[in-house]
Amino acid sequence: MLDAAAELALDGAAGATVDAIAARAGVSRTTVYKWWPSAAAVLLEGLLERTRYTIESSVSATTREALHDHLARLISLLRDTPVGALLRGLVASSVSNPVVGNALVDEWLAPRRAAVIGQLADGVRRGEVRPGLEYDAVVDVLFAPIYHRLMFEHQPLTDRLASEILELCWPGIAAADRQE
Amino acid sequence: MLDAAAELALDGAAGATVDAIAARAGVSRTTVYKWWPSAAAVLLEGLLERTRYTIESSVSATTREALHDHLARLISLLRDTPVGALLRGLVASSVSNPVVGNALVDEWLAPRRAAVIGQLADGVRRGEVRPGLEYDAVVDVLFAPIYHRLMFEHQPLTDRLASEILELCWPGIAAADRQE
Repeated sequence: MLDAAAELALDGAAGATVDAIAARAGVSRTTVYKWWPSAAAVLLEGLLERTRYTIESSVSATTREALHDHLARLISLLRDTPVGALLRGLVASSVSNPVVGNALVDEWLAPRRAAVIGQLADGVRRGEVRPGLEYDAVVDVLFAPIYHRLMFEHQPLTDRLASEILELCWPGIAAADRQE
Repeated sequence: MLDAAAELALDGAAGATVDAIAARAGVSRTTVYKWWPSAAAVLLEGLLERTRYTIESSVSATTREALHDHLARLISLLRDTPVGALLRGLVASSVSNPVVGNALVDEWLAPRRAAVIGQLADGVRRGEVRPGLEYDAVVDVLFAPIYHRLMFEHQPLTDRLASEILELCWPGIAAADRQE
């Protein structure tokens, strides 16, 4: 079912319904609803599984490199694949439908944010990141610019945006002797 | 017409139409359309006029203080007045209606972003802000967290968010001798 949902999402089927997911997976609607509360929930969980590589960091990377990779992969995912249009559509739906809003936060945003917070905590242990940061604010200053440009389209999602964000934010994140 | 539109917006009339604006202003639809391309455009321009105090900075403030004020006023505007719900609705509409998207950028976002860029440029002249910054990225790291929390509701719009953002971003914005 997750595979079916991810395939529909990556095909650009922003309107993928529980019926479409059930049909592609060869199960009944009831079976889908047994495990997920909404089409958005199964779509976003399937999508997260398929795009998990965009939030994994190589063990040898510095924290700054890991954050840069994460930012660059999110930019590319939202700009170069149907995921961007799918997320725009789901954010629009979420304004009038809290079930979609919950799915967006629980199945898409929360796991991605947890991965970044894990990288930051590793960075603290390795002496690269200053201790005592408000992690939720850190994740927002780093990643919100990408979602903001996706939604408002006031500026393009460029490759160099990842570096621009880090140049501005890294000095406030880094341990005192690691600010370069 | 701007007054009528602003009053409708601040009453929480997210669905304010050109008809409603024309009726309240005592003019015809044609007159509204002579000056603005859409209800969203006149609504947002009226709203910007009424809330312009939220982007003005006192002459004596340091750049850091001026940015803090701007952040704190936007948080309060989106959290404590009907403007937040209105903007959420317009962002949702903008996904399927580019006219609304253009109004959001041209009548709401662009003037607010220009005010911040003016503050940053003043800061450079006064030696408080480092020269050569990519202003569009600076505005995004500072203000996108607020719009991100408005749209996704993954974290609350707290009063202290303004300080949290500035503590993280100011070291990357400040001139070398002004980082505290």
